[in-house]
Amino acid sequence: MTEYKDLGTDEMRALYDALEKQYEQYCALGLELNMARGKPSPAQLDLSMPLLGCVNSTSDYHAEDGTDCRNYGVLAGLPEARALIADMLDVTPEQVVVCGASSLNVMFDTIARAWITGLGGQTPWSQLDSVKFICPAPGYDRHFAICEHFGIEMIPIELGEDGPDVAQVAELVADPAVKGIWCVPQYANPCGYTYSDEVVRGLAALKPAAGDFRLFWDNAYVVHHLYDDPAQQDHVLNVIDACAEAGNPDMVFEFCSTSKVTLPGAGISAFVSSVANANEMLAAMGAQTIGFDKLNQLRHVRFLHDADGVAAHMSKHAELLRPRFETVLEIFEEDLGDTGIGTWTKPRGGYFISFTGLDGTAKATVAKAKEAGVALTGAGATWPYGDDPHDSNIRIAPSYPSLDELAQAAHIFTVCARMAALEKLLAE
Amino acid sequence: MTEYKDLGTDEMRALYDALEKQYEQYCALGLELNMARGKPSPAQLDLSMPLLGCVNSTSDYHAEDGTDCRNYGVLAGLPEARALIADMLDVTPEQVVVCGASSLNVMFDTIARAWITGLGGQTPWSQLDSVKFICPAPGYDRHFAICEHFGIEMIPIELGEDGPDVAQVAELVADPAVKGIWCVPQYANPCGYTYSDEVVRGLAALKPAAGDFRLFWDNAYVVHHLYDDPAQQDHVLNVIDACAEAGNPDMVFEFCSTSKVTLPGAGISAFVSSVANANEMLAAMGAQTIGFDKLNQLRHVRFLHDADGVAAHMSKHAELLRPRFETVLEIFEEDLGDTGIGTWTKPRGGYFISFTGLDGTAKATVAKAKEAGVALTGAGATWPYGDDPHDSNIRIAPSYPSLDELAQAAHIFTVCARMAALEKLLAE
Repeated sequence: MTEYKDLGTDEMRALYDALEKQYEQYCALGLELNMARGKPSPAQLDLSMPLLGCVNSTSDYHAEDGTDCRNYGVLAGLPEARALIADMLDVTPEQVVVCGASSLNVMFDTIARAWITGLGGQTPWSQLDSVKFICPAPGYDRHFAICEHFGIEMIPIELGEDGPDVAQVAELVADPAVKGIWCVPQYANPCGYTYSDEVVRGLAALKPAAGDFRLFWDNAYVVHHLYDDPAQQDHVLNVIDACAEAGNPDMVFEFCSTSKVTLPGAGISAFVSSVANANEMLAAMGAQTIGFDKLNQLRHVRFLHDADGVAAHMSKHAELLRPRFETVLEIFEEDLGDTGIGTWTKPRGGYFISFTGLDGTAKATVAKAKEAGVALTGAGATWPYGDDPHDSNIRIAPSYPSLDELAQAAHIFTVCARMAALEKLLAE
Repeated sequence: MTEYKDLGTDEMRALYDALEKQYEQYCALGLELNMARGKPSPAQLDLSMPLLGCVNSTSDYHAEDGTDCRNYGVLAGLPEARALIADMLDVTPEQVVVCGASSLNVMFDTIARAWITGLGGQTPWSQLDSVKFICPAPGYDRHFAICEHFGIEMIPIELGEDGPDVAQVAELVADPAVKGIWCVPQYANPCGYTYSDEVVRGLAALKPAAGDFRLFWDNAYVVHHLYDDPAQQDHVLNVIDACAEAGNPDMVFEFCSTSKVTLPGAGISAFVSSVANANEMLAAMGAQTIGFDKLNQLRHVRFLHDADGVAAHMSKHAELLRPRFETVLEIFEEDLGDTGIGTWTKPRGGYFISFTGLDGTAKATVAKAKEAGVALTGAGATWPYGDDPHDSNIRIAPSYPSLDELAQAAHIFTVCARMAALEKLLAE
């Protein structure tokens, strides 16, 4: 087959007309399909319904140490909840602070803490003329939104299949205004890439000019494999150990949650770091709250037990997610495989597929899809300031729709992408 | 009977020796009693156990509008949860943002928001040379701890039985650095005082120099009456209405929670203000989280229903709390009534009794009680910076111990207070 760019103008026009007819038929259906956000499907949520019975009106409400989980207190989280997260991330419970339902909130609060009181005895960021973060892109729009909220200058760098370019990062952190880098190190949002061991070790061994530079390590998809076969799973290196080994034990803040393990609206989240950093956080948290919801922590411990329990539970999620990813990938291959108008990632975990079309076509593709009733993450959202310099990247979220809906949405997407590509090529 | 101060030295010495013997007997018992924190007792928590069954593994998890409460979203809280809080506080649901388990956290976050992005388009507080808060005292130690965390200068003023002196507050807010006042307007912590309508109207009509001055209205005990008889209840005026009527609709942030209605570790909290202020908060919250725990909001709506349901439930709390308050007050009257060495408040709601001894005796009393196994809130804690200028105020929290324990603790307290007073008088 011929790639679109090698077609003659008349062939392109004929192809476009045919696609346009298909598109109009889709538009006439009045569909409402959503591939915009990484939301688990109702069937996935059903997997965690037993969680809600783990603490009920007649059950025991005491923690292992006798704490009445209904009452005030226990700032760092129940010991068994800290142990559960520690087991998931291969750290010690003393390195874990268990928080509320949202790890995004913990990340926000961590930057707020740097802003208000500073980190490790350094100047509060609010008192600095300039604070900068390195932002591997494509990346997670809500990380970028936090930076925008604080007025933190974002420096986009390319995210490679093995992670960011360590040499480039090393150069950037020579600037003392650079205080952090956003990392989703395993099954990255949206590419699905996992940082290589070499990249993790390189980042852990950085010698930043700023004493309060931190790796913001959002390990959101740490247990979110699509395949049970270990050979088909990614496992990012333990960054806490890597930083300690490199002599930078306090240089990383790791975040995780059970939002996509149990229930997005009612999970538990955690901050994980050196014991010194955990204690620094707890000292500040003491002014902020008396403690997070311990009954929900208890529910999670009773439901998930330990890392093995988490893995077994995640395998059930994978059963529901895997066919969705495969459906999208098959349709992309079928519809776009020989067109040369786009590439896409083939993740082994996480929640997203990253599509990269021809330069200057992402916005047009998303707009067309919207008109045909398919909601996609806004073009540009995967870049700082919503500004994709190539206008080419689109995040695909296959988790929420049913398989039938998803197949339809994927076909509509490829029609839109092909039309946008042809419009581009015809205008050249 | 003769007041202690009118006794002769020998009489004082004899009295002191007798008290000391009693004290030594108490010390020998190796007791562990706690009147330090406003924690509900286990029997109170039992009242809310049905709450935990309101959302279980087989129950419906949809909100009235069809929202799947298990999934992401609904930043401002479920409509029915907003309606529940609105009913409790006599405002509209649009004025309510429902948050997580801790209203303290909401207060902290609100000041953090002022610090980071500013309020109402004004300069972020982090960029100002000086930020000051007015702190009626005795007051709530955790309010003061938030100010200390941010480096906000606290200006203590006297809290009268009707609330703070509005004329004094009006003078202070002529300073543009004064950005807030902490108010616990009903059954104040620790005095149990309720602001009069005149004081509320006076505060609502302030003309502060700072455009971003706010009343931080911590209505923590709004439904926490000790008596069912309306004649024995305090009801503070609706401050949201009062501010609107005075032409200051955006000048108040009201906070409340169900921590002492349902479960302190697992309640819901709320921010209540003008619609403009609620929307300003939501805009900032959008960078912070995707939403708070909606299943817990659903539990609360199903358990409490509305303001009448809350009142019926609070009446059960009152049954448990009332005898505790009455026990302490009776023992204080019996042991201290004719000594002239202290006064104490007689609240009709809330969680505390405020004791004021002779100047320079609070620390000594608390230290003695501690040695005898009775934990009290640290002397000074009810004042900004922990600095009670008279060293006379002690907060008594009668809610947690059993009635027997409480009676013993109250007797030990009066022995300690009498000894400290006699030491003081003998040294004069």
